[in-house]
Amino acid sequence: MDFTNKLNRYVLKVEAGLDRYLPSDRIRPARLHAAMRYSIEAGGKRLRPVLVLAAAALGDARRRADPMPAAVALECIHTYSLIHDDLPCMDNDDLRRGRPTAHKAFDEATALLAGDALLTHAFALIATAYASRPRLATALSGVLGDAAGSRHLVGGQMADLLAEKKADATASELRFIHCNKTAALIEASLVMGGHCGGLRPAHLGCLRKAGQNLGLAFQIVDDILDVTADSATLGKTVGKDARAEKTTYVKLHGLAAARRMAHRYSKTAAAAFERLPGDSDFLADLARSLETRIK
Amino acid sequence: MDFTNKLNRYVLKVEAGLDRYLPSDRIRPARLHAAMRYSIEAGGKRLRPVLVLAAAALGDARRRADPMPAAVALECIHTYSLIHDDLPCMDNDDLRRGRPTAHKAFDEATALLAGDALLTHAFALIATAYASRPRLATALSGVLGDAAGSRHLVGGQMADLLAEKKADATASELRFIHCNKTAALIEASLVMGGHCGGLRPAHLGCLRKAGQNLGLAFQIVDDILDVTADSATLGKTVGKDARAEKTTYVKLHGLAAARRMAHRYSKTAAAAFERLPGDSDFLADLARSLETRIK
Repeated sequence: MDFTNKLNRYVLKVEAGLDRYLPSDRIRPARLHAAMRYSIEAGGKRLRPVLVLAAAALGDARRRADPMPAAVALECIHTYSLIHDDLPCMDNDDLRRGRPTAHKAFDEATALLAGDALLTHAFALIATAYASRPRLATALSGVLGDAAGSRHLVGGQMADLLAEKKADATASELRFIHCNKTAALIEASLVMGGHCGGLRPAHLGCLRKAGQNLGLAFQIVDDILDVTADSATLGKTVGKDARAEKTTYVKLHGLAAARRMAHRYSKTAAAAFERLPGDSDFLADLARSLETRIK
Repeated sequence: MDFTNKLNRYVLKVEAGLDRYLPSDRIRPARLHAAMRYSIEAGGKRLRPVLVLAAAALGDARRRADPMPAAVALECIHTYSLIHDDLPCMDNDDLRRGRPTAHKAFDEATALLAGDALLTHAFALIATAYASRPRLATALSGVLGDAAGSRHLVGGQMADLLAEKKADATASELRFIHCNKTAALIEASLVMGGHCGGLRPAHLGCLRKAGQNLGLAFQIVDDILDVTADSATLGKTVGKDARAEKTTYVKLHGLAAARRMAHRYSKTAAAAFERLPGDSDFLADLARSLETRIK
């Protein structure tokens, strides 16, 4: 099967998993559960859950745990962070994945609570779905809690806000933001997938390294697309960074240099994937495809 | 030792535990960690962590796990819910525990992120502190995830907001709100403490029942204090419910009936505590003291 077919198959699996592991919107209070599903069902690349499934597939089938609950947990965390990031007191964005943002489709309070509920659901899902394998559940919860917490995901958001206010962030500050706001969760996706696949610590280390590099490449390409893409293709407002005079890789290093950096990080990620057991071609191809994506 | 001394000793222990298990405000980004600590250090009754410690103390000392990380996790969840509840898009409150609310002392975005970080920290702390006892970690994370999630804590907040808009909530709706917004986390505190204490399922069931009743009594007394107390004693704005024409136990049933209901729930909770092994007098006394509290 070629790369695109394999990717599409993973994405379809993820969509089914999300539907299965999200609470029904018939559960009381229906408005809250509808808002949770609205944002999850808005789509997107499903990059993080696909990384979980693909990393788990590297492991021995006899030792493997179903990686789907972990994949869904990652998408819950990613989606909650987007909902909160779009709120008026943060980026104040009206458009996300080509649809009105949660606080536009519902209201601010509902969006805030839907984000809180998705964040909580991620950990609840891990604890319940892996209850019969408590060692795995605890490892997954620990990796996710670290990546999503104040030192990484939330810390990266905070640093991003602080940098926006001064509009002259240094290269080191920008790296801190991208490592934590974006790369930490991508890295956690691969490591959590590896845990589900029963991979050895050395291979988990390899996934960690690949994730860091893939995450940085991914964020630099995001910065580039904000300059070069159009809103319709991207599904979100473009040119926002420049208007906000936000420091990005493009602003700091120029478009050509940003492209070279994205290429270097992608290459390092692909090389780390190729050192892994099993069929890691898909992950290496994914690293390369993310570098040249147009949305 | 009499009840008040014992309570004060527990509260002092909790304060030390919070300081120990919260990330330092010297960790980058310092502003985020300072905001997390600002809200945690604002004080309050520390009811939930005290319940965790007291319930754990009922268990056999030889089988007991340190309940402090679980106690801190509960206070993180409670504090995050207050920070988000105080935000302008929710209750828009300026005063909490006698101090400016987080978004007044910092700003809205920082308060939002500090709440997100405290919520995440609760689960991360459980996963790391109980890593060597993964069965316990998974049980604690499952109980907390359920109580704090869309069906309970967040669901209760959502139902509360929806009820405010219509201003004529029924007794059944009000019960749903109080069971979930308040009682679920109080119940979870006792059950998690029981898990740390290694209590048997029958005793965990007893703690669950006590927690539900204690939680309802606690919330009804809250409704009563909003009418009868003054802001200085209470440390938060009073008379808000009446001004917002919010449905409360007092509005729905009258002050005398609300007091009778609080008394009945407290009594049921105290009776459930008295069926537990070990020295459960403290918990029964706590139930009685919460009924007659003035703040």
